Amino acid sequence: MDNVIEENTELPSDLSCRRSHHPEHVKKDLTNRLNRIEGQIRGIKGMVEKDIYCDDIITQLSATQSALNSVAKVLLQGHLKGCVANRLAEGDEEVLDELLVTIQKLMRK
Amino acid sequence: MDNVIEENTELPSDLSCRRSHHPEHVKKDLTNRLNRIEGQIRGIKGMVEKDIYCDDIITQLSATQSALNSVAKVLLQGHLKGCVANRLAEGDEEVLDELLVTIQKLMRK
Amino acid sequence: MDNVIEENTELPSDLSCRRSHHPEHVKKDLTNRLNRIEGQIRGIKGMVEKDIYCDDIITQLSATQSALNSVAKVLLQGHLKGCVANRLAEGDEEVLDELLVTIQKLMRK
Amino acid sequence: MDNVIEENTELPSDLSCRRSHHPEHVKKDLTNRLNRIEGQIRGIKGMVEKDIYCDDIITQLSATQSALNSVAKVLLQGHLKGCVANRLAEGDEEVLDELLVTIQKLMRK
Repeated sequence: MDNVIEENTELPSDLSCRRSHHPEHVKKDLTNRLNRIEGQIRGIKGMVEKDIYCDDIITQLSATQSALNSVAKVLLQGHLKGCVANRLAEGDEEVLDELLVTIQKLMRK
Repeated sequence: MDNVIEENTELPSDLSCRRSHHPEHVKKDLTNRLNRIEGQIRGIKGMVEKDIYCDDIITQLSATQSALNSVAKVLLQGHLKGCVANRLAEGDEEVLDELLVTIQKLMRK
Repeated sequence: MDNVIEENTELPSDLSCRRSHHPEHVKKDLTNRLNRIEGQIRGIKGMVEKDIYCDDIITQLSATQSALNSVAKVLLQGHLKGCVANRLAEGDEEVLDELLVTIQKLMRK
Repeated sequence: MDNVIEENTELPSDLSCRRSHHPEHVKKDLTNRLNRIEGQIRGIKGMVEKDIYCDDIITQLSATQSALNSVAKVLLQGHLKGCVANRLAEGDEEVLDELLVTIQKLMRK
């Protein structure tokens, strides 16, 4: 699995230099969605702890996966209209190869 | 979206009566995995806050989705060998219809 | 990729001995669905040949993938109520391990 | 489900005016892949007809879905480097909204 970044781990140097510039309202939306997902994960932990029926837990897992997909869509929209459009406007066509790899991470396998 | 259960919300009554009986080591495994996912979500929030490049955030989202899939598989395995096998042994074939619905929640759409 | 069986290839021997027993109406339903999918694939080939806009072709691909998912669900339902239920009734719990592997092939990755 | 185009149906007029311009070698690659998928579908029909064990058929379905995903990736690559890059170069930013919708059709749900 890809190198997973958890809460307090220092960001790998090659990551830190690449920047996005989402408007504040997009960042607020993303943070709210992620806060809700965090609450859902804790809710699922509680269900496991209380021996709630597996089928009901799987329903919650599926809802959380859909919520994560929505976060990916918001990010992708900002990425297309920000980084991708800007770099293409500067003649940097490499961004399209990178975009294809990004999309493949989100596609059904 | 399905009725989403977050951390402190009281479980709907029809949920609370259905029970699973995962062995302690399975519950421990599930809880560890969910703790790590929680950390990943907080890590992603930090990346959004620090304007990290979208492509790198999407990589983390994809890793989190895979981690959630693994939780679903562990749950499904326990569900098959526990609830499903027991109810079938008692002649309750309805569990197969329920299982099909559960599986469809996890299938590619 | 798994060993892919195409139209006229002889079935590998280890395959041929394992049998299912779908009722005729289920086999008819499956065959009709697969015939339609075959027509969709030929339709997509025609669109590629006629240089139809990629976005429109991708829409057709996505519809074909959904149709394939439906075939998988019909098969899974028959499998659960046929092979799985019968083998469990004969005390053959190994079928649950096999079922878990089958389900994972259909799950989001 | 989206309006599904099968082999001989006349293409809806709004489709026919939008054109792609894939190089011949890309069209050849796409056609070969689709021919193989067509053969796989016919192979699966044969397995259903011969009452082959569901688990083995589901393996073939999953391989066919992966093959369809690969076709989508080849198309998407051509689309990004062709239509999307050209329309952006002409200042037509609407193509990004369209691209986002296209990508969502291919994303996990």
